[in-house]
Amino acid sequence: MKNIQSYITENKERFLNELIELLKIPSISADSAYKTDTLKTAEAVKTSLEKAGCDHVEICETPGNPIVYGEKIIDKNLPTVLVYGHYDVQPPDPINLWDSPPFEPVIKTTEKHPDGAIFARGACDDKGQMYMHVKALEFMTSTNQLPCNVKFMIEGEEEVGSVNLAPFVKNNHEKLKNDVILISDTGMIANDTPSITTGLRGLSYVEVEVTGPNRDLHSGLYGGAVANPINILAKMIASLHDENNHITIPGFYDKVEELSTEERAEMAKAPFNLENYKKALDIDAVYGEKEFSTNERNSIRPTLDVNGIWGGYTGEGAKTVIASKAYAKISMRLVPNQEWEDITNLFQKHFENIAPEGVKVKVTPHHGGQGYVTPIDSIGYQAASKAYEDTFGKTPIPQRSGGSIPIVSLFEQELKSKTILMGFGLDSDAIHSPNEHFGIWNYLKGIETIPGFYKYFTELSK
Amino acid sequence: MKNIQSYITENKERFLNELIELLKIPSISADSAYKTDTLKTAEAVKTSLEKAGCDHVEICETPGNPIVYGEKIIDKNLPTVLVYGHYDVQPPDPINLWDSPPFEPVIKTTEKHPDGAIFARGACDDKGQMYMHVKALEFMTSTNQLPCNVKFMIEGEEEVGSVNLAPFVKNNHEKLKNDVILISDTGMIANDTPSITTGLRGLSYVEVEVTGPNRDLHSGLYGGAVANPINILAKMIASLHDENNHITIPGFYDKVEELSTEERAEMAKAPFNLENYKKALDIDAVYGEKEFSTNERNSIRPTLDVNGIWGGYTGEGAKTVIASKAYAKISMRLVPNQEWEDITNLFQKHFENIAPEGVKVKVTPHHGGQGYVTPIDSIGYQAASKAYEDTFGKTPIPQRSGGSIPIVSLFEQELKSKTILMGFGLDSDAIHSPNEHFGIWNYLKGIETIPGFYKYFTELSK
Repeated sequence: MKNIQSYITENKERFLNELIELLKIPSISADSAYKTDTLKTAEAVKTSLEKAGCDHVEICETPGNPIVYGEKIIDKNLPTVLVYGHYDVQPPDPINLWDSPPFEPVIKTTEKHPDGAIFARGACDDKGQMYMHVKALEFMTSTNQLPCNVKFMIEGEEEVGSVNLAPFVKNNHEKLKNDVILISDTGMIANDTPSITTGLRGLSYVEVEVTGPNRDLHSGLYGGAVANPINILAKMIASLHDENNHITIPGFYDKVEELSTEERAEMAKAPFNLENYKKALDIDAVYGEKEFSTNERNSIRPTLDVNGIWGGYTGEGAKTVIASKAYAKISMRLVPNQEWEDITNLFQKHFENIAPEGVKVKVTPHHGGQGYVTPIDSIGYQAASKAYEDTFGKTPIPQRSGGSIPIVSLFEQELKSKTILMGFGLDSDAIHSPNEHFGIWNYLKGIETIPGFYKYFTELSK
Repeated sequence: MKNIQSYITENKERFLNELIELLKIPSISADSAYKTDTLKTAEAVKTSLEKAGCDHVEICETPGNPIVYGEKIIDKNLPTVLVYGHYDVQPPDPINLWDSPPFEPVIKTTEKHPDGAIFARGACDDKGQMYMHVKALEFMTSTNQLPCNVKFMIEGEEEVGSVNLAPFVKNNHEKLKNDVILISDTGMIANDTPSITTGLRGLSYVEVEVTGPNRDLHSGLYGGAVANPINILAKMIASLHDENNHITIPGFYDKVEELSTEERAEMAKAPFNLENYKKALDIDAVYGEKEFSTNERNSIRPTLDVNGIWGGYTGEGAKTVIASKAYAKISMRLVPNQEWEDITNLFQKHFENIAPEGVKVKVTPHHGGQGYVTPIDSIGYQAASKAYEDTFGKTPIPQRSGGSIPIVSLFEQELKSKTILMGFGLDSDAIHSPNEHFGIWNYLKGIETIPGFYKYFTELSK
């Protein structure tokens, strides 16, 4: 019976070209100008699932971008794996920092990817990682090696908060019924250090608006006499962290899961070189919450970051104006046990409380999601671990990620099943940044590893 | 001999239409995309001066926008008035807040302007006020009532710091030789309360750039672990004022002219209604330096305002990114005795000093100018005061303005003559804001008042 390695060797070029075609479509969910392209991408995903051997594929309409659903049921008595991924991508800006156009994929080698990497928006997050599962399915169906049932749910709004996924999941318990959920939308430590993400941070994303005078004013005639919304917004943002970089929102830390000294010692074993980290980002020092390490700050600790700020005159030259309004997009990364709706409310109440006289403040909750932890003694985790051992020759390291996949905790709540996060990207792949890329070695290694998960999960489920 | 009132009555329509034509040209000096329109405006000003009776008019090239020079010399032994103004305008954005297109002038009545006002960018600042002088000259030449020599110097870079005016003035002492300088680029208290600006604030305008990581980062993977340039910029801006809204830059107040209790009491007599002021701006409270009144805060006290801020994702929807860079445009209004170059250096040194580890800071000085005070016992002030008495039936109130006309102190330095600031606009005319306008009554009242200044100045100079 044909094995996966030889199948990949024979089909490598086609696997690459199919992904490149998918990456050419700018499915930017955050910008309604790309609506048509986003729908076109959904159609492309549907076709790819049909070709990969799904018996039934459909495009499920939502108030926003549609969800592509596909399934191949071989035996009701066998376990069912539900694969989740997303076909939408982040906006590419700042566009001028891309070395090649974000939607014209090119292959270049990098220090971390000597076999070459595909440079394009969505290459790693998440078109490339999602498509590994489509190709793994193609292998299993075309060689009669699919050991269980499989369902695909590929959405188009992950980068804007999956607002329409929750109702879809709530209304389709039977359709989505499964024994384990499999997602590749995270990363691993290094190509020679495989890891499986066991923890995710939650998210609360808000937009704030500070209004001062009812119109833009001349800064000479009014400067110093009225509250300047930009100065006030800066002051309010600054006050959200204290001198130890603790977040000052009352109640923010109340439910934060505190790790034991042992657990923190265990985490500290993950390979990490601070000098290389600083060098890679060209910074002279790291910065963050006092008394926690860099790896702790971006994984087990909640954080608050301004993702965007704007107000007043930002064009060429000078304009001596006091703006009427100033804006910021602010996101908080949360840890398990922090309820994202509660945190959003705490933020809103606090931000309104600290607004000084002379300005009006508006806080608009954007979206959010819960944190999540995968137990490493679960069948799903064990199956994944064995699959990595076969293809990497090493036991993967369980790792907490700082990122958020809000829907993971939703899945557990609604579908009562655990999620396994098999990520094959690297931190250096620049997801959400200019020049996002995905290693060809990683893409093929993912396709190679996934069938093993199906095999071991089916065996362990007996 | 024809008097000015009847001349205005006969030519009112033409005076309005000529100004409207001038306002249709978008001479935005801050945006190089409007270079051609800006040059076209200079040509239009040249033509208008020729028609108004100047013997010699020329367009003087500079490395930036040209300066229009015109003169009518009737007798070397008579005094010479030098009129300064500018034909460039502020950028119109935010464009969506204009009720009518900024470069398609319309006439509408307002509460303050029952006789109607011209709505257009530059209507008041400064095309409208500059053109009053052209029409006043036309009256005096066409009716043989020009009592002295007159020179015009109309520049095209006032809104971007008059960078090329200083060298022009320095290199043309003889050409620009005069006994008094006359400028209408300020305002007055109200149509029934004429005032003459006797003080101006200086200006230091800088742009700051804060750089964190060398590329945009995913806020989930890096959030809380690296310095976020936007959070840092907010923190740095917030620290520039203390809890009493004093500016914290070391040495900033060292040379600030402190007014006596008597002088402050004198100032306090100027009519001012705090409730109306707040109502007009739709704010629940004023905001500013402790222990100073609103009128003091925006005239005799130096201030610091952020005029623009930007960084990260500012588009539609959400992007969970940590930006590599954040920017702000910051201006400081200065009072007499504060040297703008010194203040710029103090700011730069301080801002670089307060940058925390993990970021790099760049401060780019933009432009600036000195504060200025006109002595009310000077011949020039007295002549202006008498001219207002004739046309308003009231003695004008001497008033300090918070605005800056950086070149006024340059003129004194280089040309050894005092400047008289006869402004006919109102604070409510929204200069630098959407829906800028200039009252028709004010426009004509300016044309009516200016010839009186020439008459009295010539008499008092004997």
